[in-house]
Amino acid sequence: MEKEIKEFDLSELAIKADLADYSPVRGCMVIKPYGYAIWEAIQAELNKRFKKCGHENAYFPLFIPESFLKKEAEHVEGFAPECAVVTHAGGKKLEEPLIVRPTSETIIYHMFGKWIRSWRDLPMSVNQWANVVRWEMRTRMFLRTTEFLWQEGHTAHVDEEDADKEANKMLLVYEEFMKNVLALEPIIGQKPDSERFAGAKKTYSLEVLLRDGKILQAGTSHYLGDGFAKAFEIEYQTPDNKLKYAHLTSWGVSTRLIGALILGHKDDIGIIFPPKAAPIQVIIIPIFKKDEEKELVLSESEKIQEELEEKLNLRVKIDKRENLSPGFKFNEWELKGVPVRIHIGPRDVQNNVIEIARRDTKEKIKNSPRESMSEFIKGLLEEIQDNLYKSHKKYIGENIREASSIDEMNSILDEHGGFVKIYWEGDDEDEKKLKDLTKATLRVRKFEEFPEFIEKEGKCVLTEKASKNLYFAGRAY
Amino acid sequence: MEKEIKEFDLSELAIKADLADYSPVRGCMVIKPYGYAIWEAIQAELNKRFKKCGHENAYFPLFIPESFLKKEAEHVEGFAPECAVVTHAGGKKLEEPLIVRPTSETIIYHMFGKWIRSWRDLPMSVNQWANVVRWEMRTRMFLRTTEFLWQEGHTAHVDEEDADKEANKMLLVYEEFMKNVLALEPIIGQKPDSERFAGAKKTYSLEVLLRDGKILQAGTSHYLGDGFAKAFEIEYQTPDNKLKYAHLTSWGVSTRLIGALILGHKDDIGIIFPPKAAPIQVIIIPIFKKDEEKELVLSESEKIQEELEEKLNLRVKIDKRENLSPGFKFNEWELKGVPVRIHIGPRDVQNNVIEIARRDTKEKIKNSPRESMSEFIKGLLEEIQDNLYKSHKKYIGENIREASSIDEMNSILDEHGGFVKIYWEGDDEDEKKLKDLTKATLRVRKFEEFPEFIEKEGKCVLTEKASKNLYFAGRAY
Repeated sequence: MEKEIKEFDLSELAIKADLADYSPVRGCMVIKPYGYAIWEAIQAELNKRFKKCGHENAYFPLFIPESFLKKEAEHVEGFAPECAVVTHAGGKKLEEPLIVRPTSETIIYHMFGKWIRSWRDLPMSVNQWANVVRWEMRTRMFLRTTEFLWQEGHTAHVDEEDADKEANKMLLVYEEFMKNVLALEPIIGQKPDSERFAGAKKTYSLEVLLRDGKILQAGTSHYLGDGFAKAFEIEYQTPDNKLKYAHLTSWGVSTRLIGALILGHKDDIGIIFPPKAAPIQVIIIPIFKKDEEKELVLSESEKIQEELEEKLNLRVKIDKRENLSPGFKFNEWELKGVPVRIHIGPRDVQNNVIEIARRDTKEKIKNSPRESMSEFIKGLLEEIQDNLYKSHKKYIGENIREASSIDEMNSILDEHGGFVKIYWEGDDEDEKKLKDLTKATLRVRKFEEFPEFIEKEGKCVLTEKASKNLYFAGRAY
Repeated sequence: MEKEIKEFDLSELAIKADLADYSPVRGCMVIKPYGYAIWEAIQAELNKRFKKCGHENAYFPLFIPESFLKKEAEHVEGFAPECAVVTHAGGKKLEEPLIVRPTSETIIYHMFGKWIRSWRDLPMSVNQWANVVRWEMRTRMFLRTTEFLWQEGHTAHVDEEDADKEANKMLLVYEEFMKNVLALEPIIGQKPDSERFAGAKKTYSLEVLLRDGKILQAGTSHYLGDGFAKAFEIEYQTPDNKLKYAHLTSWGVSTRLIGALILGHKDDIGIIFPPKAAPIQVIIIPIFKKDEEKELVLSESEKIQEELEEKLNLRVKIDKRENLSPGFKFNEWELKGVPVRIHIGPRDVQNNVIEIARRDTKEKIKNSPRESMSEFIKGLLEEIQDNLYKSHKKYIGENIREASSIDEMNSILDEHGGFVKIYWEGDDEDEKKLKDLTKATLRVRKFEEFPEFIEKEGKCVLTEKASKNLYFAGRAY
């Protein structure tokens, strides 16, 4: 546990590591190339998975007519206070203001209403990679910004069973992705009613424990019921010629995942990227003093880069800057979290070896044979990926504790952070009280705990009522 | 020449082919999965090329403070009338209105001003894939929409020579991409001053002749001089410790390219996609009557798909719809422009053959051996790509004509459309007159023509003044 990490550290680290910068627009950030490459890696990995599920990408308008947002009562109540509104365009006042999309349910379901006629059209699905805007009061780089990038998937189904199954399936797709690509072990489950998405019947969520002991909601999947279908007239003809409303789902993850990645793996010298999500997977640092060594070492560096790019399809870079010492560069790339460094000097070239440094364990492998480099690096990256995942899994395993009173909760959270398992039997007012008393919120009811919660029974941590609802609570971003 | 194509045909065709749909937001379209896949193919191909040039992707805010837009006088004059303005957000009136980016020079150069300190930081470059909004009076699906998707590259250099070289280099990158991926032969050159990008010193452009005889500006690259650098204080220290302003470039292409692709290759039955940009490259149509044939044919179709995806990395789909006849499907996929169809029935499976239909020549190859399918399809796709490019090149070659008077211009444009080469020696007012008289505009001064324009001299088609300026003119979208 590293509790010394302060809330503002992420921004400081992101700027030092050249991932992002502050922008002159309130609450908006600039994602620099080193940060954006993570998003591109995430997109490629998720697109592969969405394609397997049959979800294709499409694009819907940025602007949503104000009247659309108002069609679903809960939805507008949830989003109206956060909206950015275009009132003028082309030099004139608009007849109807346009909302900059905070999420696209309303515009996409308007189109679904046009496209869906018969049961043969179902299930229908689209995914969209897009920017969205939510006017948040407090913003924090990567974790909560006024504008952010995300993907939002939307599906329509014949009934509740089929739709809820899809919402659960996409939750598991995200879970597998987080484990295998981001090397993070999320806690998945269902949100309490107070935290449902505005307009949803059920919201499922992935909660990631960060290295500062705080929790981050890293992705959600919603079963929306037929409320939106009624608002946007998504009706289909059944095989026996009846008209029924479709049942909908939506699910999304955002650039917030980059925040999860950074704070889920960092140590006291900086970021540690898991290879599959790393913007640069291997950094080559040529080391030379005299000019006659330079050509030798640089040309060998280029051969190494070419080999790793072509044989292993890796993201590789050579640090050719001449006004900086090797030691300075080592430190910088450690801070920036590159999983593997290759150091190469003139003697290494002569001896046909390289020096390899791994970021996670800080081990150095000297005199590694040049000949078997690709094979070795391939295995090493897999090992690092696996090691980081195991480390996060271990970390989370050590940081789930049980509490049966508010005092116990507070002493756990003050000392350790992490998740606290509690029984809960309270209303919305009680949830506010819980937050006042502990600064913690109910995160999810975890699926694996269902047997336990059926068999066992406890007492609500606040109201002391008998309860079968076992929740994971914690202090969250 | 197919002059019967009407202006509104593109929308009709795009909707019929399931590429896009109208949206409820004025001038905005929905890009459906079949259309969006083209954009993804374009992105992948351009990203490869940008990476080779050293341009990395990044992301900058959607919103631009109004005061930023006003910092460069020409720029604000050009864009202010087209802006969409956010005046309210989070339930309050904003102190300063925010412009929804029509292009990102101002916000990106503000950041360049922060990041650039020394000559060592130059050249600096970023590319951004993003949505932009321009409130156009008349919109047309894919060709001119209020919101559109594009990429915008921005670079900063030590001086004019280096920057102008970069602007020219990116023009040639686009040209190579258009030839080899979109199978289109653009006319490249420099825009007349009246058509310069707002704030640029020189605008280079790629002009594509469409099959209706009209011309489409399909991409631009700008040398911006140091005007923006002065407005945003992009100063760098030279090696001898002086302060100098950087010289900038920007360059972009948009979803308009999809319009160019459709209208650049269409024939009287529909779209013809060149394989490299096709959303689906091979469509498999299983043909069966009895239920016992169905399993045999479908399982073979899946094997074919798997083989083509794995061996050739192609975008392949099986049309499994059961309520439609093979003939209906053939017509639909012809309309939708899929380069290659594979038809497979039970007898084909038994005889270990397939039927192959190519979209461009409408040829059918019966009894093509199943064993050598991958090899054959690979060659066929290359042939189709090449054939479409040659066909467009021939088409453009036949549609460049010379004119020495307004009457001659009009009779060429009325009869043939296409490009008209003219000498021009007029001012902005004369250009308006030219447009009134011919409905045509000066498109570009073509580079290859420079020797000609230096050696030869002609008479301006309107003012009859002696002129050395040879322009390509035409009626444009």
